Amino acid sequence: MQRLVSFNYKGLRQWGVMTTDGTAIIPAVELEETYFIPLAETMEEFIAMGEEGLLNLAQMLEMNKKDKAVEAIPVSEVRIEVPFYPQRNIFCVGKNYPAHVKEFEKNPKAEVPENPVFFTKATTSVIGPDDTINSYPDITSSVDYEGELAVIIGKRGSNIAAEDAMKYVYGYTIINDVTARDLQKKHAQWFRGKSLDTFCPMGPTVMVGSWPVPFTIYTKVNGHLRQEGSTADLIFSIPKLIEVLSSGMTLLPGDVIATGTPQGVGMGMNPPQFLRKGDEVEITIDPIGTLRNKVK
Amino acid sequence: MQRLVSFNYKGLRQWGVMTTDGTAIIPAVELEETYFIPLAETMEEFIAMGEEGLLNLAQMLEMNKKDKAVEAIPVSEVRIEVPFYPQRNIFCVGKNYPAHVKEFEKNPKAEVPENPVFFTKATTSVIGPDDTINSYPDITSSVDYEGELAVIIGKRGSNIAAEDAMKYVYGYTIINDVTARDLQKKHAQWFRGKSLDTFCPMGPTVMVGSWPVPFTIYTKVNGHLRQEGSTADLIFSIPKLIEVLSSGMTLLPGDVIATGTPQGVGMGMNPPQFLRKGDEVEITIDPIGTLRNKVK
Repeated sequence: MQRLVSFNYKGLRQWGVMTTDGTAIIPAVELEETYFIPLAETMEEFIAMGEEGLLNLAQMLEMNKKDKAVEAIPVSEVRIEVPFYPQRNIFCVGKNYPAHVKEFEKNPKAEVPENPVFFTKATTSVIGPDDTINSYPDITSSVDYEGELAVIIGKRGSNIAAEDAMKYVYGYTIINDVTARDLQKKHAQWFRGKSLDTFCPMGPTVMVGSWPVPFTIYTKVNGHLRQEGSTADLIFSIPKLIEVLSSGMTLLPGDVIATGTPQGVGMGMNPPQFLRKGDEVEITIDPIGTLRNKVK
Repeated sequence: MQRLVSFNYKGLRQWGVMTTDGTAIIPAVELEETYFIPLAETMEEFIAMGEEGLLNLAQMLEMNKKDKAVEAIPVSEVRIEVPFYPQRNIFCVGKNYPAHVKEFEKNPKAEVPENPVFFTKATTSVIGPDDTINSYPDITSSVDYEGELAVIIGKRGSNIAAEDAMKYVYGYTIINDVTARDLQKKHAQWFRGKSLDTFCPMGPTVMVGSWPVPFTIYTKVNGHLRQEGSTADLIFSIPKLIEVLSSGMTLLPGDVIATGTPQGVGMGMNPPQFLRKGDEVEITIDPIGTLRNKVK
């Protein structure tokens, strides 16, 4: 397991690898210049390199463990930014946890969908950790959070069978699928209510390599726990989602699939608790980290 | 009015301007090399240049009218290709013609939506004129056409008022919003049924400059007229669509908004007539041209 991050250090955006204890970052550019093995200037390009990039990186991290030629930068000296900018819309899955289906439908007997519900979020909605979510008081009065595990696709493919799907998974990150509930309803299809600028916080890291599944997702608002869900409860598993989405549709390296949100969104509370100016949303999935954003 | 096209000539993709009679293309690269005024290598880059590119182009076309230094290539010697590849998902509008709402809802009394219904098509669904639409007999049995006028955005903007919206319109093209009706229904949200590879034929030209509106859209299947609609009947006009879509969401140069399809889709016929292997769909909007695709 490694955690890739993009960060701003002394005014420049670059990427690197977080140390195991999460306190420092080994900059990719320094690894490349020290060991003369090709990496990539941005995480976007690094993801596009696929397996080869990851092997090169592993090799250099191994060398650096021995000779310590590249020094890690303390996290306290950088600003962690969005790991990468998706090229095309973020693919999302609605109603993928049984308990969330019931709260969403406001019906304890609501049945789970027979087929995954796919929609997208505009690329312009993406922001990074500690960036601010806009509450758009002029156009919505029901901005809601949705803490989600997101899968990043590592190689091009279509008609991918579930049993082969994990070969196409590059890594994982966290997404807050921020949603204007009134717009989601008002425009019938969900795209608009999901796609306002700042409505897709993403990060803080991209976790690559193996990790004991399932993941647990915790969402807090102003320090209070709102969501606690396990990807063990996904109605459509990650391999199944990839199988269905890629059936007739080509997936590309760098594509992001947000896998759905567990129970505990603001609209499901009684009375509903939507986000307001000054609120802070924190989504934690170990070992990816905590995605924290304030609302303005 | 000018019509921009991308085309393959002697094995190379390039772009240029169609002559008024539509029989030949003035290649942009030749204009640039002859008159030493900067254009762009691809139509994607040219659109990103916005107003400046269009002014440069107009100036060179004027010069060429006089000295005829650049020769036009006969259309018969080239293959017209997709004009440009959208960077992010194509924005689409559902149920935007009153008569289509009724056929879609299978209810002659169906009411028109109070707010535009926005969804997206994946970038990987885009194909060009004369490319083949795949009928995916293994995953759908109801592939349908939707002839549509598409608007291309020319400059970045958000919260665009309807009265300013036309300043953001770069030009127009045709889109066939091919849809697997069964998948559209089965997955609740429309994205998947709209996004299979080859499900977004686009072209043949990008029309820029002024033209007397409204546009008339004709769709033929195997030579039989199926759709005849006027953009005068749009429930949400182009300025209104831009106003609503850009409210809180940034539009980018090169974004494409397909404005909806008029009455006459295959699902609206009695019995429904879906596309089959060997069928040919032709969508004509003057002066953009005819977008023709066969089904395999």
